[in-house]
Amino acid sequence: MSDIHAQMLDMGRRARMAAQALRDAPAQARTDALIAAAQALTAASADILAANLRDVDRARAAGLSEALIDRLSLTPARIEAVAAAVAEVATLPDPLGRELARWERPNGLDIARVSTPIGVLAIIYESRPNVTADAAALCLRSGNVAILRCGSDCLESSLAIHAAMTRGLISAGLPADAIQIVATPDRAAVGALLTGLEGTVDLLIPRGGKSLVARVQAEARVPVLGHLEGLCHTYLHAAADADMAVALSLNAKMRRVSVCGATETLLVDAEAAKRLLPPVAQALSAAGCALRGDAAAMALVPEMTEAEEADWTTEYLAPILAVRIVSGLDEAVDHIRRHGSGHTECIVTEDAAAAARFLNAVDSAIVMWNASTQFADGGEFGFGGEIGISTSRLHARGPVGAEQLTSYKYVVRGTGQTRP
Amino acid sequence: MSDIHAQMLDMGRRARMAAQALRDAPAQARTDALIAAAQALTAASADILAANLRDVDRARAAGLSEALIDRLSLTPARIEAVAAAVAEVATLPDPLGRELARWERPNGLDIARVSTPIGVLAIIYESRPNVTADAAALCLRSGNVAILRCGSDCLESSLAIHAAMTRGLISAGLPADAIQIVATPDRAAVGALLTGLEGTVDLLIPRGGKSLVARVQAEARVPVLGHLEGLCHTYLHAAADADMAVALSLNAKMRRVSVCGATETLLVDAEAAKRLLPPVAQALSAAGCALRGDAAAMALVPEMTEAEEADWTTEYLAPILAVRIVSGLDEAVDHIRRHGSGHTECIVTEDAAAAARFLNAVDSAIVMWNASTQFADGGEFGFGGEIGISTSRLHARGPVGAEQLTSYKYVVRGTGQTRP
Repeated sequence: MSDIHAQMLDMGRRARMAAQALRDAPAQARTDALIAAAQALTAASADILAANLRDVDRARAAGLSEALIDRLSLTPARIEAVAAAVAEVATLPDPLGRELARWERPNGLDIARVSTPIGVLAIIYESRPNVTADAAALCLRSGNVAILRCGSDCLESSLAIHAAMTRGLISAGLPADAIQIVATPDRAAVGALLTGLEGTVDLLIPRGGKSLVARVQAEARVPVLGHLEGLCHTYLHAAADADMAVALSLNAKMRRVSVCGATETLLVDAEAAKRLLPPVAQALSAAGCALRGDAAAMALVPEMTEAEEADWTTEYLAPILAVRIVSGLDEAVDHIRRHGSGHTECIVTEDAAAAARFLNAVDSAIVMWNASTQFADGGEFGFGGEIGISTSRLHARGPVGAEQLTSYKYVVRGTGQTRP
Repeated sequence: MSDIHAQMLDMGRRARMAAQALRDAPAQARTDALIAAAQALTAASADILAANLRDVDRARAAGLSEALIDRLSLTPARIEAVAAAVAEVATLPDPLGRELARWERPNGLDIARVSTPIGVLAIIYESRPNVTADAAALCLRSGNVAILRCGSDCLESSLAIHAAMTRGLISAGLPADAIQIVATPDRAAVGALLTGLEGTVDLLIPRGGKSLVARVQAEARVPVLGHLEGLCHTYLHAAADADMAVALSLNAKMRRVSVCGATETLLVDAEAAKRLLPPVAQALSAAGCALRGDAAAMALVPEMTEAEEADWTTEYLAPILAVRIVSGLDEAVDHIRRHGSGHTECIVTEDAAAAARFLNAVDSAIVMWNASTQFADGGEFGFGGEIGISTSRLHARGPVGAEQLTSYKYVVRGTGQTRP
């Protein structure tokens, strides 16, 4: 067995032991640890900045793009935001020990379903050092132990952030191993994590680009929560309000083009395309968005480029929008079923019956009526943060917050009942 | 690609299409199909019996044990029970389309979490032809498509049962492919199923012996719901009522020794062992149970055989019980953590505070106070049946009924909100 593999197995064992200690610790300790971690992050701001500069210098020397370097970079303000986010997670209600259901059986057995931690979560991510703190905080809030594996590009920053959070754990009497970070950039460490570390990892959460997520989903021997693509749709139904159509299309595409909830394809009912499409196209073009349409769309908006088949299944993560004219709701739903990634889809309409049909027929993690697909976000849902968005049909679907990072057990209280 | 593999992929594709049709069909159709399936089973009783005789003859010729042949055998009464079980599933409330939660955001967004089917479930099982009907019925109740793979020992019976249920589907206007059965005994078919059939299978549910479940868990590339072992414990705390201790220990071990909820290890507080253990041991011995104890247990009940280390981690599925004297609740909890399988554990005590500590500290799927571990069953929980018991920490834990065979999606209703 390689050295790296042995080290990783050791991390797993320590994580398991920390999970037990975490479960035995009082709930208040988790809150105290989060508050202390936030304070430690603020106190360590200079160290974190210095570490980040080393990461940034390395990235520059390696010729990374400015966009990537920006994703990587921390400033005092950004570090303060990271600390504030951790402090906010400290204020979230405890998702553990809740009675999710309780009922009595005819024989008098009192049965309750009670929330518990999942156990050991491994988060694999790239480029964003803030994920080190965000993910660790949500794991801690939900009583889970975290094993973090960041990209080599933000390793120094992440180690510094991790060190601060560890001080928070220790000051609250929690084991330092409740949040571990893989300190080696060696790729073999990821391979080991994907095996589940001999049963010690309960769940893998990949955060990053498509190739990372695809690799994890393909090779992981343990459950994975995440999404491959956010190929979201906004559908302008025949009864859509024209102004709302413009406002929503613009926001859904252009608010931030690189988030998973950005709309990538606009579907427009033929019946109202002449009324709806030109103003929408104009607003998007003025905002710098390139439009690629089918023949019917181009006929209405000649400035569009011609869309190819591949455009209907492309997550651009850029100011580019595919536009297709559809014959009605059925065709819109069919298009989404065939080309979507099960993430987020929206219908814009004043026709409540049409909205109801759409909301019922479309089977994505999030279906919307008259709202921007950019609301696909745990914070916007009121979850107090998210560790990611899942398109999995099992365990959790949609935004994954502290509450979704829990399991449950049944507590049965009897008075001596025996089963016939 | 082998013929079998191609055939299996085709089943997967047909399952996917059937899943869509099932989702689009009215809820009443699923109830109608279940009622019709139950009636079809009764009507086909003679055919099913004839098919079963062929399975039994084959098993006899192959020299299978009487116990296995009995597990395999159907009688008119057993077939009637199978039909009645399907008819009962028809009366279960529809678990789909339920609003599991609903809330409004400060910006006016109305967000609901609504239950949906999971999709395509593959059930792999051995020996018990009734599983063909039970599993298919629960899948149908929860809007899921089923791909069934039974053991070769009950293939003829299962095919006949499947044919009857298909008639029920068709009569209710549902696609026949909503319940498919693998008609070839070729082992390569299981291998194909374990790959997930190119993304068409959402969940695997193995029902059977340890080697089947272990193989599935080790090789599956898709999520698995099930349990490897039911190594359950009953712990007689120092403040246990002596009569209750006898009744519960007897029922938990001997009601049916081969169910996963049977107690395999009895833990007894040293402080009260002299009071509690001899009557319990006497009752168990009188019922035909062999006892294997540690030195302290043997000192109190000399008729016991000496337990070895392996006895603490053995699921006997037989009238054998391992007995260990512990120093108190902490040691009992520690023993369960180290040796248990996370299935079901019970504390017998009149001390509510001790019970609370036990119920909180033990992290198994089901934790009990003063009740028989044999209640670990979906029917007993009020779920109207179960497809199996899961010790997984993800998606569903404990008995898996129709409600647990669902996923959810978010439905967001807005009035044109854009995200800042």
